[in-house]
Amino acid sequence: MSLRFNLIAETAAGGRRGRIVLPHATVETPVFMPVGTAGSVKAVAQDVLESLGAEIILGNTYHLYLRPGHDAIRRMGGLHRFISWPRALLTDSGGFQVFSLNSLRRVTEEGVQFRSHLDGSSHSFTPEHSIDVQIALGADIIMAFDECTEYPADHTRAEESLRLTMAWARRSLAHFRAHRHEVPWNDFAASVSRPAVVRASTPPLGSATLNPAQNGVPQVPCTGGPGMDVSESEIRLRTQCLFGIVQGGMYRDLRRQCAEQLTAMDFDGYAIGGLSVGEPRELTLEIISEVLPLLPKDKPRYVMGVGYPDEIEQYARMGVDMMDCVLPTRAARHALLFTSEGRLNIKNKQFAEDQSPPDPACTCPVCRRYSRAYLRHLMQAGEPLSATLNTIHNLAYYLGIMHRLRASLESPSLAPETRSCSSSPTTDH
Amino acid sequence: MSLRFNLIAETAAGGRRGRIVLPHATVETPVFMPVGTAGSVKAVAQDVLESLGAEIILGNTYHLYLRPGHDAIRRMGGLHRFISWPRALLTDSGGFQVFSLNSLRRVTEEGVQFRSHLDGSSHSFTPEHSIDVQIALGADIIMAFDECTEYPADHTRAEESLRLTMAWARRSLAHFRAHRHEVPWNDFAASVSRPAVVRASTPPLGSATLNPAQNGVPQVPCTGGPGMDVSESEIRLRTQCLFGIVQGGMYRDLRRQCAEQLTAMDFDGYAIGGLSVGEPRELTLEIISEVLPLLPKDKPRYVMGVGYPDEIEQYARMGVDMMDCVLPTRAARHALLFTSEGRLNIKNKQFAEDQSPPDPACTCPVCRRYSRAYLRHLMQAGEPLSATLNTIHNLAYYLGIMHRLRASLESPSLAPETRSCSSSPTTDH
Repeated sequence: MSLRFNLIAETAAGGRRGRIVLPHATVETPVFMPVGTAGSVKAVAQDVLESLGAEIILGNTYHLYLRPGHDAIRRMGGLHRFISWPRALLTDSGGFQVFSLNSLRRVTEEGVQFRSHLDGSSHSFTPEHSIDVQIALGADIIMAFDECTEYPADHTRAEESLRLTMAWARRSLAHFRAHRHEVPWNDFAASVSRPAVVRASTPPLGSATLNPAQNGVPQVPCTGGPGMDVSESEIRLRTQCLFGIVQGGMYRDLRRQCAEQLTAMDFDGYAIGGLSVGEPRELTLEIISEVLPLLPKDKPRYVMGVGYPDEIEQYARMGVDMMDCVLPTRAARHALLFTSEGRLNIKNKQFAEDQSPPDPACTCPVCRRYSRAYLRHLMQAGEPLSATLNTIHNLAYYLGIMHRLRASLESPSLAPETRSCSSSPTTDH
Repeated sequence: MSLRFNLIAETAAGGRRGRIVLPHATVETPVFMPVGTAGSVKAVAQDVLESLGAEIILGNTYHLYLRPGHDAIRRMGGLHRFISWPRALLTDSGGFQVFSLNSLRRVTEEGVQFRSHLDGSSHSFTPEHSIDVQIALGADIIMAFDECTEYPADHTRAEESLRLTMAWARRSLAHFRAHRHEVPWNDFAASVSRPAVVRASTPPLGSATLNPAQNGVPQVPCTGGPGMDVSESEIRLRTQCLFGIVQGGMYRDLRRQCAEQLTAMDFDGYAIGGLSVGEPRELTLEIISEVLPLLPKDKPRYVMGVGYPDEIEQYARMGVDMMDCVLPTRAARHALLFTSEGRLNIKNKQFAEDQSPPDPACTCPVCRRYSRAYLRHLMQAGEPLSATLNTIHNLAYYLGIMHRLRASLESPSLAPETRSCSSSPTTDH
């Protein structure tokens, strides 16, 4: 398989301490993945993300397909190089954004027709097209094209939606297996399989004409070259991997059926999708509990789009290896800070002359340098630095929870201490 | 005097290589000072400014007076501590913003009445009030309250405006001399002279309850204390300094008269104001040429609100020691990058797949890591990182011009090389 997943430790409750070896980085799990929708984790520069310890970030296929376009990104060597991010990347399939940002979409057996939220232009995604776009973007981990079942949905509707997701999963996998060698950072692919897409005016990968930092993006070792035979296993070792997504609405039987069928298809990892779509949290928990034991132990498990600080800790303790969510970054831009003392609305007047750091227990660059009073002032004054500093702190808080949790899962004797550090009361100030 | 100015070298053309020793930093001149209007150089964090080599930044008295308020900033220990900026600060008098942001202002002999651009509330600045506000903010260098004569203005109008500026300069200086010990980072002032303004709940300066970085803001050494006698010279050595501002419109006789009178008043430094207000550049140059020889050689000379890259180099070569301008930061937010190859409008479609750095000759963190294509994408996508990266580059470009120029002024034999590096063709791409 194109990723290696090592299980380092496992708790009685199912919590897993693991390590995913990907083409661009080794990711320690459980991991929280910051979301960089349009090729940027909003308001935070890449070197800051690195210093915070982010090993893998997300890009959104829908957004990048519309702007600047996957073909442009392919011509520039892929998303890693385009955004100058040398570590691991994951792209979603675009399905979720098509469903959440488009009221005029039309779903058929073939795929989804939709209109751009930017200019109203018509587009369509099929499983094959989504995979093509994701191969062009070149993230380390890409996702099967699925339909995110809305909530609420009755059993008949959820079953029909699942039927589509399963058919699309098979087509996604088949197309990926046939085309994965076309990833732009695979030199073999660039020089042999798709010569037409490499423009004469585009510097080759590793060209000395690029700035040093871009050259510094690690390229996957290449043993192939023009006209050389490259074995199937060699291609797999240096290209992307594809995750399947378990859907089925809030119905245990459908989720079970989906998990079993996807497992039989042998994806590189498995996601649980269709959660955090409006259902009560107990239901989210119930579905995760139901699905986790059905997934193969030797592959990463990813719950998409969650959650609050206490949620990500809870799910990780149950055996979820990967999570992503816009919450820490989006909340930051709306003045909501997550801290060891609970949530702070930093716009609140009570902080006007509060010279203490945002979170006295936090050692992030923001808490080491700035006061609540200053962060409040930046927000009140509409200063762009407000979003940057708030986001850095919230990401540090989320990544810190996972960092401590990994230590706790590895050395269960440390658990009580790390638990108290990462507890997250939800009292609003 | 409360600053020490050392002239290190002087060229035949009048260019000066100097050093200003201020309470919070030693500033190498000629210096370009980034503008941090409301307590933040827009979109750039303080540690980045430090890494770019900014030794002194500006705050705007008008903006900080309105929000968060100078009394609040005084209670929090002054502007350095509030924004966590340990190096030098300069505040303007508020006069320029009152004139430029208020169409409903009313000017009398006493001062200016104006309405807040934020909420329409009524306020007034007198020379005494401007100085009080600037003492509360506690910048290393503060400015006399003046009237920035509009352009064009006939001789009679410019003469009347200058009469006001001169009267206000005398009142500014007298009030400053009577109150300069009240600066919030002067422990003597905090503990003796204005005990009422130190709230019981506010940690004293240097308190261990603050975050380390704030404690790290260097405090001026204090030899005084409650009940102790502190000599006039001791107070002067550890408090702010006040600059006078030469006005007089575009009239040589008025500028000369103003410079002579201000020089006699013995300010700590001298600014040339009322330029870059719409006049042709030849006129700006003419006024600067006229005024510079009239100013004392042993004090810093500051031209306010200029300019383009080639302007700041030109004026520094004529003997200007300090300049500030919103141009590099404001232009950055509107996609205009200054580079060794000329100005780039980074929104331009021609950069869509341009993988070269913004400025191939630049070693700033942005040019080392990101491509023109990525900066264009960030701007097109409305990503907040766009303003941050563009601003970092433009500031690095401006600070780099001054850095090379200082080397050239110190070692005139290097001049040809440094000239070519900092030349700034104005071809738009």
